[in-house]
Amino acid sequence: MAKRIGKSRKRHGKIKDGELLFVPLGGLGQIGRNMFALEYGDEMIVVDCGLMFPDEEMLGIDFVIPDASYLLERKDKIKGLILTHGHEDHIGALPFILPQLDVPVYGTKLTLGMVANKFLDAAPDYPLQMKEFEAGDVFKLGNNFTIKTISVCHSIPDGVGLAIDTPIGTVVHTGDFKLDPTPVDGKVTDYAAFAEFGRKGVLLMLSDSTNVERSGFTPSERVIGGTLERLFRQYRNKRIVIAAFASNLHRAQLVFNAAAAFNRKVALVGRSMIQNVKLARELGYITADDNLFVKAEDIEKMPAKKIVVFTTGSQGEPFSGLVLMSKGEHRHITLDSKDVVAVFASPIPGNEKLVSKTINQLFSCGCDVVYDKDQQVHVSGHASREELKMMLSLVKPKYFVPVHGEYRHLVRHANVAQEMGIPKRNIFLMQNGDLLRLNMHKASLKRFAAPAEGVLVDGMAIGEMQGSLLKERKDLSEEGLMVISIVLDSKGRLMTEPVIETMGFIHIKDAVVLREEILKVVRISLERARGKRQGDKDYLTSILKSRIRESLKKLGVAARSSPVIMPLISFVER
Amino acid sequence: MAKRIGKSRKRHGKIKDGELLFVPLGGLGQIGRNMFALEYGDEMIVVDCGLMFPDEEMLGIDFVIPDASYLLERKDKIKGLILTHGHEDHIGALPFILPQLDVPVYGTKLTLGMVANKFLDAAPDYPLQMKEFEAGDVFKLGNNFTIKTISVCHSIPDGVGLAIDTPIGTVVHTGDFKLDPTPVDGKVTDYAAFAEFGRKGVLLMLSDSTNVERSGFTPSERVIGGTLERLFRQYRNKRIVIAAFASNLHRAQLVFNAAAAFNRKVALVGRSMIQNVKLARELGYITADDNLFVKAEDIEKMPAKKIVVFTTGSQGEPFSGLVLMSKGEHRHITLDSKDVVAVFASPIPGNEKLVSKTINQLFSCGCDVVYDKDQQVHVSGHASREELKMMLSLVKPKYFVPVHGEYRHLVRHANVAQEMGIPKRNIFLMQNGDLLRLNMHKASLKRFAAPAEGVLVDGMAIGEMQGSLLKERKDLSEEGLMVISIVLDSKGRLMTEPVIETMGFIHIKDAVVLREEILKVVRISLERARGKRQGDKDYLTSILKSRIRESLKKLGVAARSSPVIMPLISFVER
Repeated sequence: MAKRIGKSRKRHGKIKDGELLFVPLGGLGQIGRNMFALEYGDEMIVVDCGLMFPDEEMLGIDFVIPDASYLLERKDKIKGLILTHGHEDHIGALPFILPQLDVPVYGTKLTLGMVANKFLDAAPDYPLQMKEFEAGDVFKLGNNFTIKTISVCHSIPDGVGLAIDTPIGTVVHTGDFKLDPTPVDGKVTDYAAFAEFGRKGVLLMLSDSTNVERSGFTPSERVIGGTLERLFRQYRNKRIVIAAFASNLHRAQLVFNAAAAFNRKVALVGRSMIQNVKLARELGYITADDNLFVKAEDIEKMPAKKIVVFTTGSQGEPFSGLVLMSKGEHRHITLDSKDVVAVFASPIPGNEKLVSKTINQLFSCGCDVVYDKDQQVHVSGHASREELKMMLSLVKPKYFVPVHGEYRHLVRHANVAQEMGIPKRNIFLMQNGDLLRLNMHKASLKRFAAPAEGVLVDGMAIGEMQGSLLKERKDLSEEGLMVISIVLDSKGRLMTEPVIETMGFIHIKDAVVLREEILKVVRISLERARGKRQGDKDYLTSILKSRIRESLKKLGVAARSSPVIMPLISFVER
Repeated sequence: MAKRIGKSRKRHGKIKDGELLFVPLGGLGQIGRNMFALEYGDEMIVVDCGLMFPDEEMLGIDFVIPDASYLLERKDKIKGLILTHGHEDHIGALPFILPQLDVPVYGTKLTLGMVANKFLDAAPDYPLQMKEFEAGDVFKLGNNFTIKTISVCHSIPDGVGLAIDTPIGTVVHTGDFKLDPTPVDGKVTDYAAFAEFGRKGVLLMLSDSTNVERSGFTPSERVIGGTLERLFRQYRNKRIVIAAFASNLHRAQLVFNAAAAFNRKVALVGRSMIQNVKLARELGYITADDNLFVKAEDIEKMPAKKIVVFTTGSQGEPFSGLVLMSKGEHRHITLDSKDVVAVFASPIPGNEKLVSKTINQLFSCGCDVVYDKDQQVHVSGHASREELKMMLSLVKPKYFVPVHGEYRHLVRHANVAQEMGIPKRNIFLMQNGDLLRLNMHKASLKRFAAPAEGVLVDGMAIGEMQGSLLKERKDLSEEGLMVISIVLDSKGRLMTEPVIETMGFIHIKDAVVLREEILKVVRISLERARGKRQGDKDYLTSILKSRIRESLKKLGVAARSSPVIMPLISFVER
């Protein structure tokens, strides 16, 4: 079920003639659930529609999607939804939001292929309207938006940045990018296109802030090829298991190249890995012979030195291929000293402990494990500080909004822009739900113009939940629960012995003294209430709660805090 | 209350004449809760007694302490407990374990001062028997153990390694160490002592594995002095707020030096910071004039350029000084653009998200934030790989056991020892609770000889809890709870409408259809059970659970999983 946290906010007024509005609904202040709106007159376009994975405090929540209510209220204006690339934080919320908007979705071939797979799982009956473009294509949406797509390198193939011509000027959005001069697929970030827009004049630039904290340049994905070659040479006689992100198809290509060169077969493990590689091969993004591959069930039949296992689980995800292997629970593969496992990824912030646990577990299988940063097992897909400067110097925008980052990334990217000569007053540190209003002469920021708190998704079920539910889950999780069922007659007398149950708190059946004490407290409290408010359920519930809590403290079983106490009172006619 | 996880294990047999036993009860396979036992004949000594902070899965648990039952069963043999230094993972479990062992505790002046403070808080009535030594001192425990203490550098002053002479040879334990050639207090790691023991011959070496993954050498703490100088110069006109570990008194000294040099006063914030600095000044570990300090309540009265705030919270701990400031909730200090906040620490693994959140929050106060690795705001207190090699080459032990590390650190440290020429058969990859049996001729490992699972401490309250309680808390936290109180007469008929309450799950009061549906399911289930097992509470409870679960799924409110369902049944005579 989906739940909205936070309160609704005031809306902005009418759009004036000749005004362009930029409204980010996600991706600012946290990395994930990217979604932006651009409005001009009675037309609107939407860019990306991603999800975010929850942090540990969001108990039981599966993921967080953007709040689409701003879009739904303006549904008739929307001319299309444009996707920059196929990562979950850019396309993952589509099954929840697109059917409500019911507009065509624009993307490159690979991106749309991933969208189609996603809908096959989540909403197979929805009639997707997909419009394919190639990087470099130009198309019009409505009367006011001309979209020029620009090839950018990223950790997934076929990503684009956008230059959006509007009646008052051009908006350049870098998308998620790096300036890899030697990308695996040969498709470099199209500097020339960015430069050309810069020369013509750019009104507003939105740029990826993820790696602004890293100095210098992000290394080329091609260095992974070198690492793989060293790995295959060094472990010539071992079985090689490689874990990586299933969406990094560049890296998949490099693994397949290395396997072919070293005369090994490849077995794919993990649903998303198999699905993505299949799609990428069908669409021509990966070149690999059919006979390079063997099935996972045949892995153990192959000589160790003749096979590479390519698997999901580089983030220590609980039921992923690598984690199952590390625990000895994988159906098709058992790891031991004949194996080397190489984790070709860095932990995403927040995943450090899961990854660390998995690596410890792998060592305990007796295999070699390659995971060191100094062994160059990972390069990022995002531009580092010097690349961001280069991009700013190409695009030379009038106004600048750093996007795709936590708050500290946005601040630091804003500082970089200022160093590059953009006046401070032309740089806007926006948050989700803020609105930037631009015309030919000026730009102004309106805070909290659109509801943009995350919408929490718990499973795929229906229904709305209040934000307080998370708080209740947290309370239950920290100290457990005591439930007491009490049956009273109309005079407020106990009709039978109260039933006490506990969960996540001292097992009440084994705690005879405690049980007796609670029963005593209940009896005394009820006796005292008689004649006064004996029929007042709320009153009785509240005094029972506080008396029981006091007695738990007195008994020393709940010194610092105490379990959730739930008295349930039934009245029965005698 | 304290709870033991895991089951008890088999014990080892009798000790033979001329045998030395080494039993690690914590610190191996995870970093934290260090505690070792050494036994010879009818005598035993214990080294360290630390706690560990729980990971997120241990819901509501405050910390994890070692299982002391192996020691308690051999209580009469114990001649003393020796502390290597004053960090929580080496002394934190003393209030729980020392009163049970009731033996003297040995440590340096600072370490014992911190122990005394700890007991003042946690067990003020316990008559601590404290025996002070200085690094370099030699003392005897029982007839079989001669303890030679060796000065080592670490991120807290007055740490020691140990060389323990026993009738069959010397055990060298490095303690937590680094080879800082220019320590702040001038007390270098005593290479000469380690080398001398090496020359005489060492039977067994235990060495700190924490940083084996880092190549090269750990920089000297003194580099922080340079960073501070740059910071004070660059932000000459701002108020400076510095966060660091409260136990890193070297760093405190550097901050006080810088403050004095740049003519600023210092205000200490955070209980542990104030307590540790007070202790260190009293004992002479920190040199600073009284008039250097001002009280926290006077901070806002001082000109920004005249004050340094030195605070806890470098790990983003929820109620620490820095976190309260970042949220604008600190009583004595309000941060804004006149401030620069410098976090002089790296996140401990697992704390990354908390630290990151705090830094975002600080930026949103409008202050400058200095936290970048490349700005050298932190150096580790543990030796890196080349230092570990150097230590191995000095001590040249016959047998080697890597300690103080997660499993992967132990494996890699074992590999380093092998590279350094120690034969593989003489290197033991031990886990907590394993037992190493040594005599003049050989060494052998016995797995699972002592119970050594962590003991979970939830508050300071009494009582034992079963391990299943954590599982129950997890279940409650993920999907919430539905409780149904049902009152039946002796014929199994409902005597009043069931009371339904929920927590962390759809608010039942707002879910009329759901409530009606559940009531219907309850009525039908009870009706079906009548005449058969109408008085069987367990049977009724179990069918109600499964029927309600089914109906939640059918209604689509609990598609993937479902809340905990607790029917409470009372029988009443009509």
